[in-house]
Amino acid sequence: MENKMGSIDFRKDFPFFESSINKGLVYFDNAATSQRPACVNRAVEDFNNFNNANPLRGLYDLSVRATDLYENARAKVAAFLNAPSDSHIIFTRNATESLNLVAYTYGMAFVEEGDEVVISAMEHHSNILPWQMVCSAKKARLVWLECDASGIIPASEWQTKITAKTKIVSVAHVSNVFGITNPVKEIASYAHKVGNGGKGAVMIVDGAQSVPHMKVDVQDIGADFLAFSGHKALGPMGIGALYAREKFLEQMPPFLRGGEMIEYVTRESATYAELPHKFEAGTVNAGGAVGLAAALDYIEKVGFDFIEKNDNALAAFIMNGMKTIPHVHVIGNDDPDRHCGIVTFTIDDVHPHDIASMLSSENVAIRAGHHCAQPLMQKLGVGSTARASVYFYNTQKEAEVFLEKLSGVRKWMGLS
Amino acid sequence: MENKMGSIDFRKDFPFFESSINKGLVYFDNAATSQRPACVNRAVEDFNNFNNANPLRGLYDLSVRATDLYENARAKVAAFLNAPSDSHIIFTRNATESLNLVAYTYGMAFVEEGDEVVISAMEHHSNILPWQMVCSAKKARLVWLECDASGIIPASEWQTKITAKTKIVSVAHVSNVFGITNPVKEIASYAHKVGNGGKGAVMIVDGAQSVPHMKVDVQDIGADFLAFSGHKALGPMGIGALYAREKFLEQMPPFLRGGEMIEYVTRESATYAELPHKFEAGTVNAGGAVGLAAALDYIEKVGFDFIEKNDNALAAFIMNGMKTIPHVHVIGNDDPDRHCGIVTFTIDDVHPHDIASMLSSENVAIRAGHHCAQPLMQKLGVGSTARASVYFYNTQKEAEVFLEKLSGVRKWMGLS
Repeated sequence: MENKMGSIDFRKDFPFFESSINKGLVYFDNAATSQRPACVNRAVEDFNNFNNANPLRGLYDLSVRATDLYENARAKVAAFLNAPSDSHIIFTRNATESLNLVAYTYGMAFVEEGDEVVISAMEHHSNILPWQMVCSAKKARLVWLECDASGIIPASEWQTKITAKTKIVSVAHVSNVFGITNPVKEIASYAHKVGNGGKGAVMIVDGAQSVPHMKVDVQDIGADFLAFSGHKALGPMGIGALYAREKFLEQMPPFLRGGEMIEYVTRESATYAELPHKFEAGTVNAGGAVGLAAALDYIEKVGFDFIEKNDNALAAFIMNGMKTIPHVHVIGNDDPDRHCGIVTFTIDDVHPHDIASMLSSENVAIRAGHHCAQPLMQKLGVGSTARASVYFYNTQKEAEVFLEKLSGVRKWMGLS
Repeated sequence: MENKMGSIDFRKDFPFFESSINKGLVYFDNAATSQRPACVNRAVEDFNNFNNANPLRGLYDLSVRATDLYENARAKVAAFLNAPSDSHIIFTRNATESLNLVAYTYGMAFVEEGDEVVISAMEHHSNILPWQMVCSAKKARLVWLECDASGIIPASEWQTKITAKTKIVSVAHVSNVFGITNPVKEIASYAHKVGNGGKGAVMIVDGAQSVPHMKVDVQDIGADFLAFSGHKALGPMGIGALYAREKFLEQMPPFLRGGEMIEYVTRESATYAELPHKFEAGTVNAGGAVGLAAALDYIEKVGFDFIEKNDNALAAFIMNGMKTIPHVHVIGNDDPDRHCGIVTFTIDDVHPHDIASMLSSENVAIRAGHHCAQPLMQKLGVGSTARASVYFYNTQKEAEVFLEKLSGVRKWMGLS
């Protein structure tokens, strides 16, 4: 595999792009959901056709096979994130559930009146609403790290807002609007030193946008928790994961309660299963986990070197192209290398919904709206924006089509 | 399709049974997970290959197609349960999450000190632990409807234990141990009349074991909430649903918080989306929902007449056969028509785990353990039991193999 943009045809591995209904479609909404290589579909189907049974509970060979495949998928996720061991990985439905799990358990159990929870101005709703809930229930205060117009959170922000009162810090690794990578390692280091009366605040990282695009090493960045979704990383819908340090998992009460997650139940009470099963109630999505493992294998085959190079090259191509189209404004940083393949923009006098609709009629799929980051939209003084987001299978040819169609939007709207 | 047991070969539709690794396997663990017809795999794969995008948020054609397929799947579930409208259906991961959703929202919001929550002695842990949590948090009392050794809950139980203090009644439609169908319609009627100071208690039905095996009409049985899992009903793992009456959904606070489930978010607070989206946070498992809809279509094609006839005929064949094997004891009702295809049993002096292991070596898959119903095991005075559970694709020939192997278990253990 040659690491040169445009020369590698991953597309043949993706039935989505080969299907006649999607022929010629420029799919630039990868920050929402990525497409799946055939090997992911096949892994799930093979599980269904050869190894389908409830993992963990069965004493027959088929169930043992299902258990092995499920636990191998956990090991794959652990290795992918460089978790110290498999039991640090909890399978969830998606990053949203992962973050809610931490809020409902660690948050509701350990945040107290007068404590502070620190998040950033560019968080996704999934990393805002759970903390609004915790702060409201516990009479704690939600504190916001501000960013500048280029998406940068200055060090002075966390150095003043993370204090002894801070119990939890929860920050997006990569913004789904700016595409910028936040200095989570530096923030974690400061939070661990200063937070919670010097005993250290807990550092949560929303990895939904980073895990598919860069090597994320949870130990290196100092994350106590990290959430991500499978469907943005070539995996099936309905599977995601939470990385968590064992010492917190051990302290935390369980979240969902039911089968698999118990040791012993009486009419009065229950004792809980060993990690990680304590946090996985009911029949697990083993097929989804197996599909996610196949997806992560494929990402490793492509390699983050190529992914980052392609993300950056396409962002540069798109941003340079946009400069030549009057009335188009990119949100965030001027440096395309700091966009993780995400280019959010507006066009003067054109509603972003109209941009997306018009492009859709030209077979170009981009997102428009608030990107589940309304507080950031409010801060930026925009109701909504348009967003093009690429992944490694996107090409310069597609970016050319996108830019060509984009240049016609204002005319299409009857503007000069 | 001829409704005569043994003459219909559904098996050709199930790649699982056709695969060489599972050739000859007698799969009798259907109460845990059912196998999937090829049409379910295909529906998910078609979604992935032709229509994969985030539903609900996109303004491009592909996303509109994904949204339509996802909402059509919801309509399918609504029709399958005879829900009054689609917005009564919330997609979840499984029945366990559905029950936890009700406990965390309705339960935590409306159960107060001194209230009572009524469940039965035969509940699955998923319908016990959430209520232990609610009762413990709210200083309410958990009340148990007792059953006799044949699995029957006498009317006197609910007529004495459901009182004006009762806020919630939550009962399994079909027991995963006895296989018995509980009179949920009668219990609901009484709960609605007498509970909550005469204003009516809320009736929750755990439909995990009933929905795959019988026509469940949520309006007819008077369920305010009903939970079920896709993976026991030919569907993919990782998808399930909660039926809920709209008036309760409107009163309830949201559960998981994040994308999709909001109307408007500020730094201080949020307003929530219309039903059912208020309860579906983050990117939904659209592929799973589409697979579940295909599964329910297939069940309708088979027909509940056939399913019930086959369940009952096989239960009768198995129970009659067990009578001829010394030291084998069936748990629960003598009438095979009251087992919903579930036959739970013990063998004198043989641990159920040894029964399952020995049968596995003979290519017969059954379950052994506490079946996530430890309080029932304690009541029955057994640590664990063995369980054979059939579905419509199982045959009398398989039951013959199972019985033949079963008859050798004691000898295999060195007993007479």
